[in-house]
Amino acid sequence: MRRGRSKSVREVTNFQQAPYGQKKNPFQPMSIFSEDEIEAIHQASLKVLCDTGMDIQSPRAVEILKREGAMIGSDGRRVRFDPDFVMEKISTTPSEFTLHGRHKGRHVHVGGQSVINTLVSSAPNVSDLDRGRILGNFEDYSNLIKLGEILNTVHALGGYPVEPCDLDVSERHLHAVSAAARLSTKPLFGYAIGSERMLDAIEIVRIGRGIDRETLLKEPSITTVVNANSPLVYDKALLEGAIEMAEHNQPVIYTPFTLAGAMAPITVAGALVQQNAESLAGLAFHQCVNPGAPAIYGSFTSNVDMKSGSPAFGTPEYTKATIASGQLARKYKIPLRASNANASNAPDEQSVYESQMSLWACMLGQVNFILHGHGWIEGGLCASYEKVILDAEMNQMMEAFLMPSLVNNDTLGVEAIAEVGPASHFFAAQQTLDRYETEHYNPMLSDWRNFESWRDAGSETASQRANKIWKQLLDDYKEPKLAPEVEEELSGFVDRRVSEGGAAPL
Amino acid sequence: MRRGRSKSVREVTNFQQAPYGQKKNPFQPMSIFSEDEIEAIHQASLKVLCDTGMDIQSPRAVEILKREGAMIGSDGRRVRFDPDFVMEKISTTPSEFTLHGRHKGRHVHVGGQSVINTLVSSAPNVSDLDRGRILGNFEDYSNLIKLGEILNTVHALGGYPVEPCDLDVSERHLHAVSAAARLSTKPLFGYAIGSERMLDAIEIVRIGRGIDRETLLKEPSITTVVNANSPLVYDKALLEGAIEMAEHNQPVIYTPFTLAGAMAPITVAGALVQQNAESLAGLAFHQCVNPGAPAIYGSFTSNVDMKSGSPAFGTPEYTKATIASGQLARKYKIPLRASNANASNAPDEQSVYESQMSLWACMLGQVNFILHGHGWIEGGLCASYEKVILDAEMNQMMEAFLMPSLVNNDTLGVEAIAEVGPASHFFAAQQTLDRYETEHYNPMLSDWRNFESWRDAGSETASQRANKIWKQLLDDYKEPKLAPEVEEELSGFVDRRVSEGGAAPL
Repeated sequence: MRRGRSKSVREVTNFQQAPYGQKKNPFQPMSIFSEDEIEAIHQASLKVLCDTGMDIQSPRAVEILKREGAMIGSDGRRVRFDPDFVMEKISTTPSEFTLHGRHKGRHVHVGGQSVINTLVSSAPNVSDLDRGRILGNFEDYSNLIKLGEILNTVHALGGYPVEPCDLDVSERHLHAVSAAARLSTKPLFGYAIGSERMLDAIEIVRIGRGIDRETLLKEPSITTVVNANSPLVYDKALLEGAIEMAEHNQPVIYTPFTLAGAMAPITVAGALVQQNAESLAGLAFHQCVNPGAPAIYGSFTSNVDMKSGSPAFGTPEYTKATIASGQLARKYKIPLRASNANASNAPDEQSVYESQMSLWACMLGQVNFILHGHGWIEGGLCASYEKVILDAEMNQMMEAFLMPSLVNNDTLGVEAIAEVGPASHFFAAQQTLDRYETEHYNPMLSDWRNFESWRDAGSETASQRANKIWKQLLDDYKEPKLAPEVEEELSGFVDRRVSEGGAAPL
Repeated sequence: MRRGRSKSVREVTNFQQAPYGQKKNPFQPMSIFSEDEIEAIHQASLKVLCDTGMDIQSPRAVEILKREGAMIGSDGRRVRFDPDFVMEKISTTPSEFTLHGRHKGRHVHVGGQSVINTLVSSAPNVSDLDRGRILGNFEDYSNLIKLGEILNTVHALGGYPVEPCDLDVSERHLHAVSAAARLSTKPLFGYAIGSERMLDAIEIVRIGRGIDRETLLKEPSITTVVNANSPLVYDKALLEGAIEMAEHNQPVIYTPFTLAGAMAPITVAGALVQQNAESLAGLAFHQCVNPGAPAIYGSFTSNVDMKSGSPAFGTPEYTKATIASGQLARKYKIPLRASNANASNAPDEQSVYESQMSLWACMLGQVNFILHGHGWIEGGLCASYEKVILDAEMNQMMEAFLMPSLVNNDTLGVEAIAEVGPASHFFAAQQTLDRYETEHYNPMLSDWRNFESWRDAGSETASQRANKIWKQLLDDYKEPKLAPEVEEELSGFVDRRVSEGGAAPL
C-alpha cells in the first residue's frame, strides 16, 4: 500500500509496514471457564430471556417477533423468548461469510479462524499531539478514513472513526458514508439510526461497489452495530435499521452494553449471562427477519470503576469476559466481535497496556471482528491519531505472531550450528545470508537503535514518533478514485437525498 | 505491605496495590509447535551436543564432566554429550522446590503452575524522569531493592537491579548482597563470578536467614543465572560459581544467550535448537556436580535487528520462542525462566507493548520464574524507576487475570437481573452492594477519571504518574531490620572479607 515516498520534511527514516493480507488465528482458543460453567452461563441467559425477557421498543420489530412465535407482554413491548425458540432461530445464522470491499482484493472472510481489524469508531472527539483534543469534524473524519485505507492492518471500517459533528444530522450519514466509499476500498459501515438512514447507507455502499441490487442481496457489503441499551432493552431506531440490514442480507453485530456493576451484574459470570441473553435475542430477531442473513455475536462486557462509576476497559475482567465470549460464540457457531479497548485519556503507556490486554483477549478468544482496532482512547470518547499508529504496530506484531514458524531440516539449523561452532557468530552463516531480509518482524514504529543514537536523534518516545508517521501516511495517501460512472451515480444520489432534506428526524 | 501513608507532598491520591501472594497459572499452556515439531527440536539439540559439543572453559568443570562420562576432546575443552547421558543426567533435576526468603511468608514455590516475578537485573545504567540516565551506583541499587521489597508483585530478586559501579569490584558483591539481605526479606541472588564471590554470597544469604549450614543445604535460598556464552561456550568463572551453587543445593538458572541471527541460527526453530542444547548441557552439568540439586531451564531466545545488529526483545519471534520454551521445559519437567523484556530507550509506549508481548508469552508458556520483571528497558542496559511502576501495574493485572472468576448461582446473577429488569441499572442491586468493594481489579497506576478531571489535574501520562508513585513508595519504605545477632554476624563477615581484600581478581 505504500504509494511512493513523498518528499515531505516529515519523512520518517525506515518507515515501512508489512504487506496487506487478512490473517488466520491458528491457535487453540483459551478457555476461561469449563464446559460445564459455559453451559451454566448459557442456561442462565436462556432463563433470563424466558422469565424476564427484553423490552423491544420498535412496534415493527415486536410484530415480526410475534409472527415468529415469541411471547409478547400485555404492554406490547416486553418480549419473552422460549429457550427452544431462541436456539432454533439462531441456528440459521451463517458460521462464515464473505464481507465485500470495493474489489476482490479487499473482500474479507468473517468467521472461523479469520481475523478482521478495523479503525476506531464513533468517537465524539479527536486528538493529536499538536492540537490536543477537539470536537469531531468532517476533515478529521476523512483523514482517519485515509489512514485506515493506507494501513495494512485495517481490513474494514467499523463505524465513523470520529463523529463529523460539523455536518447537519439530517445529511451527515449521506456525506460521511459517501466520503468513506470514495476514500476507502475496504468494506464499509453504516449506522442503524432508523430505517431511512440505514437504507441510504446501504444504497451508497451498493453504488460505491458498482453492483446491482440483486448482487448486493447475495454479497454482504456493509456492517452495522446494534447495541442493546442494557439492561434488556433494544431501542426503536437501531432495531428498525437492523430490519433493513437483515432484509438486505447484510450483517448486524448485536452488541450488549454490559458494563459489570452498572448496566449488568457486577460479576464477570453475571455480566456474561446478561450479554449472552441480549446478544442471543438480537441474533434470534435477525433470523426472524430473514433466515440465513449473516450476523455477528458482539462482546463488549467490561466493568466500571466502582468508586467513580467510570467505565474501565482492558481490565482483567474485560480480558476474561472477552475470552469467555469466544467460548459462547463458538458454542453457537456464530462469528464473534470484540474490541481493542482502553480507558486512558492520552495515547500513553496506560492506553497501550490496556489495549494489549484487549488484543491478547481477542487473540485468545479467537475474535473474528476486532472493532475499534486502531485509535480508540478514553473509553471510546476520543479518536487519537497517534494511537492509530501505536495500534497499527501492535496489530502488525500480533499478525506476525499468528504466522507459522516452520520446523524442518532447513530451519532447525543443525548444519548452521555445526558450521559456526563455539565462540563465533551467525552473521556470516549461509542460513543467515539466505534469510536475513525477511526472517524477522520489521517494526514500523519501534526504535531499536542504541540509547546514544536515539538520544542524539531527539529522544523521541513512541507516541512522538507516531505523530510523524501518521503525517507521512497522510502525505503518501492517494485517493482510490471511483470509476467516473460510479462517481456520477454516487454524487447524484447524495445530491438528490440532500435536496430532499436528508433523513427525517427520528 | 503499605506501611502507613507518609505526609509527603508527593502523596498520590488513591494509590494502592493488591495484597502480596504468589499466584498459580491455572490455564492450559499454549502450543506454538506440534508435539512432533517439539520432538524434532529436542532431537536436533541432542545432535548438536553429540556432534559439535560445547567449549567448557573451566578445567574443574571438565574434570567433573569427564568423571561422569561425557566425551572430552583432545584440547581438554571441547565436550561432547551422548544423548542418553544428557537425558539420564537431567532426570534427577527436581520438578518443583521451595525457594526460601528471610521468613516463611516470603518463601516461594518454584515449578508447576507457580509464578515468581522479580526486579530488573544487571543493568549497568539507571534512569528516572528527573535525572535522565546515569551510571549505576549503590544508592540507586539500594532504592531499587527497597521498591522490590515493598511491591507485592515482586517475589524474589533476580540479580542486582542495577550495577553498583561506584563500589570496588573486589568488594562489590559483599556490599551489594549484604545490603539486599538487610533491605529485603524476599529470596536473594548472587552472581556466579567465580567460586570465591559465589561462596561469599551464599554465606551472606545463610547469615541473613539466620540458619546454619546444614539447614542451608536443605533449603534453596539463593539463585544465580549462568548464561551460556553463545554459541556453545560456558565460561570459566560462571561454571565455577555454578559448582558452588550445586554443591550447596542451590538453584542455577542455565540461560543461553541465543539471539537469532547473531549468536544463534536466524530462525526461531534453529535458535531454540541451540538454546535447548546449551541449556540441557548446563542442566546436565548441574546434576553431575550434585544429583538432585535444583536448577531452572533458562529461555532468553530473541532476535537481532538484521539491519543494525541491535538486540530486539518483545518481538513476535521472542514471544513464540518463549512459549515454545515452555513446551520444551515441560517435556523435561524442569522449571522455566524467561523475562519481561523490551528494547525501548525510554519507559514509553514501546517499552509497554514489547513488555506486554513478553508477559503474555510468559503466561502462555507457563513460565515459573520471570526475570527482569520490573524496570527493564533498553534491552537490559538500563533500569528505569518509572518502568518499575508500569511493570508493577501490568504484573498486578496479570495476577488478577490468573485468579478464578467463579460461576455459581450467586455469581450468575439471574436474580439480580430479574430484580433490576429492563431500562434500569445495577448500582443499587443487592448483588452489587454485597460485592462492590472487592469484585473488580483496582489499579495502582491507571487513571480512569474522565478527560476533564484528568486534564484539570495536570494531564499526566502514566509514566509521569509512575514517577510520583515510586517516590511515595520510597517514602513509605521501612527497613525490615535484621535481628541484632544476625546483623552482628553479617557485619562481622563482610568486614572480615573486606579486610582480607575482598575477592581476588579472576
